Amino acid sequence: MLSAHLPKRVQINDVAVRDGFQSEPAFVPTDEKIRLIDRLSQTGLAKIEVTSFVSPKAIPNLRDAAEVMQGITRVAGVTYVALVPNERGCERALAAAVDEINLVMSIGETHNLANMRMTCEQSLEQFRGVMRLLQGSAMRVNGTVATAFGCPFEGEQPIYRALWAAEQYLGMGMHSITLADTTGMAHPMQVEQTTRAFRDAFPAVPLTLHFHNTRGMGLANALAGAAAGATSFDASLGGIGGCPFAPGATGNICTEDLVHMFESSGVATGVELDGLLAVARDLPAIVGHDVPGQVMRSGKRTELSARPQA
Amino acid sequence: MLSAHLPKRVQINDVAVRDGFQSEPAFVPTDEKIRLIDRLSQTGLAKIEVTSFVSPKAIPNLRDAAEVMQGITRVAGVTYVALVPNERGCERALAAAVDEINLVMSIGETHNLANMRMTCEQSLEQFRGVMRLLQGSAMRVNGTVATAFGCPFEGEQPIYRALWAAEQYLGMGMHSITLADTTGMAHPMQVEQTTRAFRDAFPAVPLTLHFHNTRGMGLANALAGAAAGATSFDASLGGIGGCPFAPGATGNICTEDLVHMFESSGVATGVELDGLLAVARDLPAIVGHDVPGQVMRSGKRTELSARPQA
Repeated sequence: MLSAHLPKRVQINDVAVRDGFQSEPAFVPTDEKIRLIDRLSQTGLAKIEVTSFVSPKAIPNLRDAAEVMQGITRVAGVTYVALVPNERGCERALAAAVDEINLVMSIGETHNLANMRMTCEQSLEQFRGVMRLLQGSAMRVNGTVATAFGCPFEGEQPIYRALWAAEQYLGMGMHSITLADTTGMAHPMQVEQTTRAFRDAFPAVPLTLHFHNTRGMGLANALAGAAAGATSFDASLGGIGGCPFAPGATGNICTEDLVHMFESSGVATGVELDGLLAVARDLPAIVGHDVPGQVMRSGKRTELSARPQA
Repeated sequence: MLSAHLPKRVQINDVAVRDGFQSEPAFVPTDEKIRLIDRLSQTGLAKIEVTSFVSPKAIPNLRDAAEVMQGITRVAGVTYVALVPNERGCERALAAAVDEINLVMSIGETHNLANMRMTCEQSLEQFRGVMRLLQGSAMRVNGTVATAFGCPFEGEQPIYRALWAAEQYLGMGMHSITLADTTGMAHPMQVEQTTRAFRDAFPAVPLTLHFHNTRGMGLANALAGAAAGATSFDASLGGIGGCPFAPGATGNICTEDLVHMFESSGVATGVELDGLLAVARDLPAIVGHDVPGQVMRSGKRTELSARPQA
């Protein structure tokens, strides 16, 4: 029964400014990014992934990483995260004084090669270099196990491979782990089994689940993960980003829809949903197109329509 | 735990031809409807809601109800359902020899007045007339409790009111009950509680759950319902119909996405998903616009991409 297993409280992390804006056709101006992050900072989100310290040639949309970090008004209690691909990125993240860096490797070798142009062993070697660089610093490090629920080239990945990657990460000194369903292949039963296996293997390690709605079951997967004991979830404002396959297809699950589901079902998120919805509703104007979020269109389930006149 | 509670097998009912085509801006030609129903009949769906014997003035898109019923090739094992608003409609359904009629009342009085132009008592009186007319016939009758999880004008409905409606229906001799989330207000915990309450109250009565994806949690609700013991689900091919609020918003949950989720998680549906997807992919051409289904765009989770060349 869900009622017996859902946690009382979860934390919600937003990745829209990094993962969403990264893949937009147009560059979102730096001051727009800063304004959006500052508004998100007021909503009760636990973490905001604000940028990626990657080569500006690789991802021109995030070429303003340092300016964004410098421009935002940090709010106590919010963790500002940046994705970091290598030691050079780590140095820039340190200089920008982010709270946490996020290191990403796909456990599908083929996907890692296609996406990162490295074998898994080469990725892990990069991570070791980053961790050496961080020795003595207070930087928090999250390790993301990408394609944890399936590789689009190789198919479903065995649970032990995700656990193996997590063990490698933790052995280097990373503090927390994200299991990411990079291309929306996870299904609820797999999420339950994987979450339980992770918690059995690493009971003291903070775990975040990162789902995509590519096949429509993103929120069902989040529900299954929460029922299996996960208490931290990534999502993206408006559901932007996350490499949708085709027009009308969705990538990342939508932050405000996720918060709406959890809060409706009695799972506290700490997020002020009305405030979050107000920010989400300004997103189409910022990116210049419709976004996949549903609650921003329909309103919350508690928002009633005016009774028709008799 | 889901794994301990999900049923081994569920049945899937499609409502696209009735609920979807009903609200299309353009009339879908009769032969297109017949061809679509005949293709759906081959996919392993348990029920197909093919039309509504409603006044052609009220719903011009379904003015061909009798021709559709006469034109289709019935497949053994598939139940062909028609919605019926009153005794006149019931007579037409009898003449067309449908397998099952579906009677619908919203338990939100305001919604019933707005939608059916009747109080709940007037709806029940109509149903009594229909049931009298059916005395001695072998017609199956399903009673739908609309707005069972919330009325858009009145808000959340107490569970006992849905159970009260079901009791009224069963007292008249109806055979099965659908609890419908008419405007997408249900949330997973409510679905679990309502499903359990229904099964406690009426353990021998076949129950169908009918969800909308209006707020993005349609499949999560179906998962919660299945985990609470529901084994019959309505959905709509491509996710069409179900009164979406706005462009880009969704109404009914999508049949092939629902089948994909259940089958992925080890819940047998009896539906041949590849065949269903092939039908779904022809739907945009029939209705002349994109439809909300996700798996029809992304492919099944087991459909892999070609490995990139090194």
